Amino acid sequence: MQTVGYAAHSSDAHMQPYHFERRSLRDNDVAIEILYCGVCHSDLHTVNGDWGEQPYPLIPGHEIVGVVTAIGDDVKNYKVGQNVAVGCMVDSCQECDQCHNHEEQFCRNGMTMTYGSKDRINGETTQGGYSKHIVVREEFVLNIPDGMDLAKTAPILCAGITTYSPLRTWGVKEGTRVGVIGLGGLGHMAVKLAVAMGAEVTAISRSNKKEKEAQAMGAKGILISTDEDAMADSANAFDLIIDTAPVKHDLSIYTPLLDIDGTLVVVGQVGPLEELMSVPLVVGRRRVAGSLIGGIEQTQEVVDFCAEHNIYPECEMIKMSDINDAFKKLAEGDLAHRYVIDMQSLSVE
Amino acid sequence: MQTVGYAAHSSDAHMQPYHFERRSLRDNDVAIEILYCGVCHSDLHTVNGDWGEQPYPLIPGHEIVGVVTAIGDDVKNYKVGQNVAVGCMVDSCQECDQCHNHEEQFCRNGMTMTYGSKDRINGETTQGGYSKHIVVREEFVLNIPDGMDLAKTAPILCAGITTYSPLRTWGVKEGTRVGVIGLGGLGHMAVKLAVAMGAEVTAISRSNKKEKEAQAMGAKGILISTDEDAMADSANAFDLIIDTAPVKHDLSIYTPLLDIDGTLVVVGQVGPLEELMSVPLVVGRRRVAGSLIGGIEQTQEVVDFCAEHNIYPECEMIKMSDINDAFKKLAEGDLAHRYVIDMQSLSVE
Repeated sequence: MQTVGYAAHSSDAHMQPYHFERRSLRDNDVAIEILYCGVCHSDLHTVNGDWGEQPYPLIPGHEIVGVVTAIGDDVKNYKVGQNVAVGCMVDSCQECDQCHNHEEQFCRNGMTMTYGSKDRINGETTQGGYSKHIVVREEFVLNIPDGMDLAKTAPILCAGITTYSPLRTWGVKEGTRVGVIGLGGLGHMAVKLAVAMGAEVTAISRSNKKEKEAQAMGAKGILISTDEDAMADSANAFDLIIDTAPVKHDLSIYTPLLDIDGTLVVVGQVGPLEELMSVPLVVGRRRVAGSLIGGIEQTQEVVDFCAEHNIYPECEMIKMSDINDAFKKLAEGDLAHRYVIDMQSLSVE
Repeated sequence: MQTVGYAAHSSDAHMQPYHFERRSLRDNDVAIEILYCGVCHSDLHTVNGDWGEQPYPLIPGHEIVGVVTAIGDDVKNYKVGQNVAVGCMVDSCQECDQCHNHEEQFCRNGMTMTYGSKDRINGETTQGGYSKHIVVREEFVLNIPDGMDLAKTAPILCAGITTYSPLRTWGVKEGTRVGVIGLGGLGHMAVKLAVAMGAEVTAISRSNKKEKEAQAMGAKGILISTDEDAMADSANAFDLIIDTAPVKHDLSIYTPLLDIDGTLVVVGQVGPLEELMSVPLVVGRRRVAGSLIGGIEQTQEVVDFCAEHNIYPECEMIKMSDINDAFKKLAEGDLAHRYVIDMQSLSVE
């Protein structure tokens, strides 16, 4: 199928219209007309080449919401006209322990990412959701429950699952004391999801600028990380901290906030962190961990959870042609919402 | 009771004979004649002032084995003539959640350490096991099962529990793949204990110098951390790594050795670690944690476990007057055994 998207043609990350072919349907494929696609900071990092060389031209986008337009002969769970979503992965080996354990993001043979990976069958570069159409094998397509606000659903596919997964892994439940460092695309979803799980949530931020937003999302308050007295008073105050700060930073100002056996989970920064002080870890058996998106089953779970609890990311709708401006603002940081591209703004012709 | 020990009188850590008074028995106290005391690197760190200012004169030593010489009126579980041990703690509040949970090392009101702490009742500085006698409340005295080799039991009280506790916390069992970084006082105990739990144990060391020792202790082999190919081949090869390296070092060469959801536990270095790379944590949901000795109940458990499995530290017996030489060799590092002071070499007169 001939379609169109916005691609980066080099690491300057300048996005331009790009006409290309989506593969013909395999028997287990679902063809999707994309309605909305969220703009994730990792889209920008990837096309910039921050995380390694890329196969340009490259179309990013892995927070995809659309409608099924055709299905392969063997597809069982989707039908034409159904609202569906695609997240950060479009394939994996389906044979290893991790795939069997519904953790395709840790596939022993490497997951196929939604963009910038090699298709496992034809070897072509996968192209993401900043485009009018996509073709994805059934096992990596998610169902969108009836009645969801499609425009706002897109960021759940990355920002949602990335924060939902550690909240589940570390057993957040009624009364768990959760801190969330940073209130951007990931952080604000972490707050909303943890609140919906019954946790007692505190936003942790460098300033009180976003205090009202945090409270509106259900946080009981905001802890200012530059206020030494407030930080000292909050020693041992958290069972779990979700750290969404996307830059190199010092974990050791946060680890003493954890209670004994508490865990700080890094989901924002992909790269070096400052020198780590062992003392708060040793004296308190505290832990520092990472977490990477979530498996397909859990991604469906977070979509369903958001539908059930009426949780949506804060979104600002943009046209496809606004993407270069959006990338610029993203690079400047400090957004408390997610840009979502309205794909109606893009035409194949 | 008038007794004698070897104390540091200043941070030059030069140890000299020191005559002092042990407190009269309280109703719940056990008086112990010390037979053996292990020499722990933290003794040296403490008297050196590496971990902060100290109340000199200070007698270190928290790997204590002895025999009961008297008991207070209310003591129920110990009798005169019984072989007993004392580890790193001699008191705690006994009232907080952590004390109730048998984790006195994390007492909310601060444990009373065997030396260099303030006694909770009279406020005097606690003095450790490099001495002829000690008086300890019953709840912090450990039983030594009949038939144990008393001379070699002492280091179990710190090196043993410090490595046993994380092996238990992280659920080591038959077939668990355990790596042990460093083969000193802590590391060699970690190997022996993990082997006895049925784990598949690999020593991780900068050279193959201690390969035979590691194998003799039951390790299946040694992984040379300076061999980049061997390290790459060992990616994902461990469920748990016990990191006993006692200096600032780079965890990020070790974290990729962990399998998905694996944990590296720092028990050696108390201070800064190098810059931490988040990538191996995020891509694999790996974890870095710390662990601090263990509670009294678990300390009794490791003593009993060593008795049952005939596990002893590698020990070199020294006289009390040899302590300054021993400290010098300890500071030079690279010992694969524990010095143990034979307290028969010290006389009160």
